[in-house]
Amino acid sequence: MKVAGVRRRTIWVEADGWSIGIIDQTRLPFAFETATLRRVEEMAQAIRDMLVRGAPLIGAAGAYGLCLAARADASDAGLDRAQALLAATRPTAVNLAWALDRMRAALRDLPPPERPRRAYECAAQICEEDVATNAAIGEHGLELIAAASKKNGAPVNVLTHCNAGWLATVDWGTATAPIYRAHDNGIPVHVWVDETRPRNQGASLTAWELSNHGVPHTVIVDNAGGHLMQHGKVDLCIVGTDRTTATGDVANKIGTYLKALAAHDNGVPFYVALPSPTIDWSLADGIKGIPIEERGGDEVSYISGQRANGDTTRVRVVPEASPVANYAFDVTPARLITGLITERGIATASRQGLAALFPDRAGAS
Amino acid sequence: MKVAGVRRRTIWVEADGWSIGIIDQTRLPFAFETATLRRVEEMAQAIRDMLVRGAPLIGAAGAYGLCLAARADASDAGLDRAQALLAATRPTAVNLAWALDRMRAALRDLPPPERPRRAYECAAQICEEDVATNAAIGEHGLELIAAASKKNGAPVNVLTHCNAGWLATVDWGTATAPIYRAHDNGIPVHVWVDETRPRNQGASLTAWELSNHGVPHTVIVDNAGGHLMQHGKVDLCIVGTDRTTATGDVANKIGTYLKALAAHDNGVPFYVALPSPTIDWSLADGIKGIPIEERGGDEVSYISGQRANGDTTRVRVVPEASPVANYAFDVTPARLITGLITERGIATASRQGLAALFPDRAGAS
Repeated sequence: MKVAGVRRRTIWVEADGWSIGIIDQTRLPFAFETATLRRVEEMAQAIRDMLVRGAPLIGAAGAYGLCLAARADASDAGLDRAQALLAATRPTAVNLAWALDRMRAALRDLPPPERPRRAYECAAQICEEDVATNAAIGEHGLELIAAASKKNGAPVNVLTHCNAGWLATVDWGTATAPIYRAHDNGIPVHVWVDETRPRNQGASLTAWELSNHGVPHTVIVDNAGGHLMQHGKVDLCIVGTDRTTATGDVANKIGTYLKALAAHDNGVPFYVALPSPTIDWSLADGIKGIPIEERGGDEVSYISGQRANGDTTRVRVVPEASPVANYAFDVTPARLITGLITERGIATASRQGLAALFPDRAGAS
Repeated sequence: MKVAGVRRRTIWVEADGWSIGIIDQTRLPFAFETATLRRVEEMAQAIRDMLVRGAPLIGAAGAYGLCLAARADASDAGLDRAQALLAATRPTAVNLAWALDRMRAALRDLPPPERPRRAYECAAQICEEDVATNAAIGEHGLELIAAASKKNGAPVNVLTHCNAGWLATVDWGTATAPIYRAHDNGIPVHVWVDETRPRNQGASLTAWELSNHGVPHTVIVDNAGGHLMQHGKVDLCIVGTDRTTATGDVANKIGTYLKALAAHDNGVPFYVALPSPTIDWSLADGIKGIPIEERGGDEVSYISGQRANGDTTRVRVVPEASPVANYAFDVTPARLITGLITERGIATASRQGLAALFPDRAGAS
C-alpha cells in the first residue's frame, strides 16, 4: 500500500543487503518513522515493544530476527538462543512460532557458514507468501462485499476492530484486504473503525491506513458497535485473528468477542480474515486452550496522543491510586462466526469447514 | 460519601442561602474543584458541558436551575424559557424533564413573588428523596451481593460500566450503592471498573470514588469484560440507567448493551440499579423509542489526562483526517437484564415486574 504516494511494505531488507527496515508503528499516526535493526536483540525488542505488531508481520519479523542472529552466530546453540528469545516476545501469536520453526527447519541440515544466506532467502519467501496470501484473502472477501453492495449506490458499511490492516502484515492486510479490493474495484464501502483500547490500533493505525488509501471511514469508540448494529448501520464485520483453533475459535484483540456477540444478536454477518498459518491445528477449545497475554498496566493507565503544539506525549487517564489489568486478547467462539476468509476461500468456522479447505494440514497434528 | 475525609454531597446550596455549589466533575480525577452557579444560564451550561452529569444529579441540577431562574424572573413566561433552556441540555435523561415538570407543578398556583422560596423547598425535597431512594437501592442490592459472597472469603467480583456512582446522584449512587453498602458491612467486594470511553467516566469518576471510599477495584478497558466473564472472573454486573421503558429496556452509557450480551452469554447476572423517576412509563420499545444523543466528535478524537509534570492536558488520539461519530448511549433490551434494582425492591425487567412494584404509576400514562 502507499504512504504519501510511495509504495511500501511494512518490513524490508535495507540497501546494505542485510540490515532490516521496519516502520515504527508506535509513532503512528502522528509521525511516520522507520527504524533499522542490526541485531536479533533489537528485533526482539521491536516485537516486544510493538514497533512491529500484527500476527503475520510478527512472523516475518521473527524470521528476519533469525537472519540477524545467523549472521552473528549460526551454530545450533546460537540459533536455539535466538529462537527462544524471539518466541518469548509475544506468546499468543502462533505465526511467530510457526515462522521460527520453518526457518529452523530450512537451516537445520546446512553447515553454519551457509545458514545466513539461506535464512534471508527463507525469510523473503515467508514475506512473499504473506503478500500472496493476503491478496487471495482480498479476492475471496471481495465477493462478500460485492454481494452486500446496494442497488441504490449506498456504501456497504463494514465494521472492523483493531488493525488487521496492511500494517499488521507485509502488505494488503487480512481484514482490510477485501475492503481495499472493493474500494479499488469501485464498490462504495465505508468502514466503522473501532478505536481499540488499549493501544488504540484502530484509531492510530487502521484509520491512518484507510486515510492514506482514500477509503471512507469513521472512527468510533469500542463501545459503539452494538448500538450501530441495533440500528442497521453495519452490513458486515470483518476482523483479523492472532490464533485460530482447528474448530474455528478465534483469538483476536480484546473486545472482538463483544462485537461478535452484537453481530450475532442483530443478524449481522461476522467474518474473520486469516492466513492459514494463523490456524493452530493442535487446539480444539480456544477459551480453554489459547493463553491470553497480560501486558503492562501502563497501556491502560496512559494514552499517547498529539498536543496542540504538535508534540506527541502521553497522559495518565487512570488515577494513580487505582490498579489496572490489561488482557491483550479474547476468544470468540466459532458459534458466533459466520465464516473464516482464508487464502483458499471462505470456510465455515468449524473443524469440518477448515478441514475441507485444508485437508493437507487438518490431519497433521 | 467522603472526599479527603470530608462528608459531601454533589450539589448544595451555598452559605448565602441561594447560589448553588457543584463539584466540577470534568476536572476529576486529577483535581477536585467546586463551582458556584448564580444564573440559570450557568446551570444549563454546567449540565451541557457535563460539570454535573448522571441522570439523578442532572434532575437535581435542573431543579436548582429553575430556582436560580425564579429568582431572576418568576413569571410563567420566564419559567417557560428557563425550563426549555434546561430541558434541551441533555435530551436523553428522563429525570431532567421529570424534575422540571415537578418543579413547575409546585410553582404553578403560586403568585410569582412566592415562587422562589417554594422552588428552593421543592429542589431540596428532590435532593432528599434522591438520597433516600439511593439508600434504599443500596439495601435491596446488598442482598444480591451478600447472596453471592463466598464461603472462602474471596471477594465478590462486580463489574460496572460508566459512573452510576455517588457523583452521578446527590449521594450514594445507584449502581454503587449496593457496593458501598456491602463494603461497609464487611462483605469482601472487588469492582471491575470499565474505563468507559468516550469521556472515561469509569476511570475518571468511578475509580476515584471507590478509591476515596477504600473499595478494592481494578480499572479495565471497555473491551475486557467479555473475556473476564468467559473466565469466571465476574460474579455479577450492576450498571445504572438514564432512561428505562415501562417494559424494562434500559438506555445507559454507550457499551452497556455489549456487557449485557456478554453477561447473558456466560450466565452472569446483569442488574440495573435505578431510581423510579428514571422509568419512562410512556415507552414500550427502548430501541425504537429512546432518542440517542449524538455528542461532539472531540470527545472521541481527544482524551484528557495528566502529564508527567502534573498538568492536565488533552491530546488528539484520532488522526485529523479521520471523521468520528459519538453516540452517547445504547439500549439494552429487557431480555438481557436479570433484574432492576429499584428503591422499592428488585423487579424483573418486564412490564409485569415493574407494574407489580409501581402499581400507582404503571397505569398513569
